Amino acid sequence: MSARAALDKEGFLLEHLSEDAGFFYRGGKLLEQGRSEWQDYEVWETPLFGRLFRLDGCFMTSERDEFYYHENLIQVPAMAHEGVRRALIIGGGDGGSAEELLKSPTMERVVIAELDEKVIDISRRYFAAVHHGALDDARVDIRIGDGMKYVNEDGPAAGDRYDLIVLDLTDPVGPAEALYTEDFFRACRALLDAGGALSLHIGPPVFQPERVRELVQRLRRVFTTVCPYFLYMPLYGSLWGLATASDTLNPQAVSADEIDRRLEQRRIKLLHHYNGAVHQAQFALPNHLRALLA
Amino acid sequence: MSARAALDKEGFLLEHLSEDAGFFYRGGKLLEQGRSEWQDYEVWETPLFGRLFRLDGCFMTSERDEFYYHENLIQVPAMAHEGVRRALIIGGGDGGSAEELLKSPTMERVVIAELDEKVIDISRRYFAAVHHGALDDARVDIRIGDGMKYVNEDGPAAGDRYDLIVLDLTDPVGPAEALYTEDFFRACRALLDAGGALSLHIGPPVFQPERVRELVQRLRRVFTTVCPYFLYMPLYGSLWGLATASDTLNPQAVSADEIDRRLEQRRIKLLHHYNGAVHQAQFALPNHLRALLA
Repeated sequence: MSARAALDKEGFLLEHLSEDAGFFYRGGKLLEQGRSEWQDYEVWETPLFGRLFRLDGCFMTSERDEFYYHENLIQVPAMAHEGVRRALIIGGGDGGSAEELLKSPTMERVVIAELDEKVIDISRRYFAAVHHGALDDARVDIRIGDGMKYVNEDGPAAGDRYDLIVLDLTDPVGPAEALYTEDFFRACRALLDAGGALSLHIGPPVFQPERVRELVQRLRRVFTTVCPYFLYMPLYGSLWGLATASDTLNPQAVSADEIDRRLEQRRIKLLHHYNGAVHQAQFALPNHLRALLA
Repeated sequence: MSARAALDKEGFLLEHLSEDAGFFYRGGKLLEQGRSEWQDYEVWETPLFGRLFRLDGCFMTSERDEFYYHENLIQVPAMAHEGVRRALIIGGGDGGSAEELLKSPTMERVVIAELDEKVIDISRRYFAAVHHGALDDARVDIRIGDGMKYVNEDGPAAGDRYDLIVLDLTDPVGPAEALYTEDFFRACRALLDAGGALSLHIGPPVFQPERVRELVQRLRRVFTTVCPYFLYMPLYGSLWGLATASDTLNPQAVSADEIDRRLEQRRIKLLHHYNGAVHQAQFALPNHLRALLA
């Protein structure tokens, strides 16, 4: 019996970080599974994370730990910005990023360009604790389709400009690979308003250092200011990298006190992770990551 | 076949973080295994971590990732201190903590009170990349025996006083449990010199929050200033807590710039993780950990 099968038999869900490393969490009860046009999906009721969502056997999000990822992916650039009004999410069909964006009182419009309608359907039915109604908020416009096409054709044709573009995607292998290229980053850059920024995740530096380095270098070839930052995310089993890329916005230059002041001024409450001190702390790179990203 | 057995068959070493969570790394080649008077031990040559040491099936240290743990356990209090001269390590038979302590140019004497002579034997033969000769340094005094007895009897009888006491122990279950009690913390406190501090690890806050909270509360009942801090440690599979406890030393009050100045002044080089920015960043607690440790 394979280790995956044996873990499965004991009720655990396994995921690899590399060929030589992996982790597992108790699955609990399988609530729904199937195959959409694009990918396999599963919804579990787990003891550690509450409801948990997997795509093609990879952990995507969960009720109880989604805040590690969504708060930091969104609030780091959003709080560094003077006042975000329009945002584009590529992927993000679970609604967690949209929900974080809507916490900003200046937010007028959030476009979600999600490839897989099934992800939105699943999230509507199972993950209210992740989207908190954001998927049906009047300010949110869901466009089912290819993010690549939206960024290269529909967006420019409509004259859309964004303060934030969020790549809330699966890992840069398989379907999402084309959305991590230099060309795609340039297309995103062309849709940014003055002062705007791109926000994305860049992978696990301990287990996939070359992937993290390559993505940061690629971003640096397109944008003036690239701020990588790192935090431990339970559902992803490791330290994980995020990055903000912009020609004008530099989140690292905004002090902890100023972030706390903005959180209060903008009345952003109920954050489980993010605060001014954490905002600054995440940019502090250990020596080995300074060397990796030099 | 159990998951552990199936993983073993595929060449992986498994460890649990709780009943519902765990992780695994490829073992590679088993170089030596056996049972000492106190515990089972194994030495592996692994693809990810180089040589790796396990006790009773738990990951202890490895050549390539020991720096996460040892640098931060030692340098956070050592660099906050005006000049450490004498240190006591309870446990720490691998020599990694002693090696970090000896980086301070003021260090005169390091006592290692290690229960299990076999750990020192194994480290001498396999883990030069962890101890770098520290186990045979003239300033290091290895006392094989019970740390409890050393702290309660031998140490006080000899009139020893320390600038740092480091609890470099296995987890607070089984043999090491008595070394995490309030009584033991008080006995350590009595051996601290003016300006001295205790340094220890306090567990994984995501998977064992109650253990982390209880240890911090226990330390606070004994010491005036308790500074918990957190970082991801690959070999321990999760975010992990460390803490400094003292009546006088407050590492959090020492700025990043001052830490960098001291590192330069004391000519401490070759650190893979720790620097001034990281020193400060590790004290920045996310909201959920602020709440846990309030």
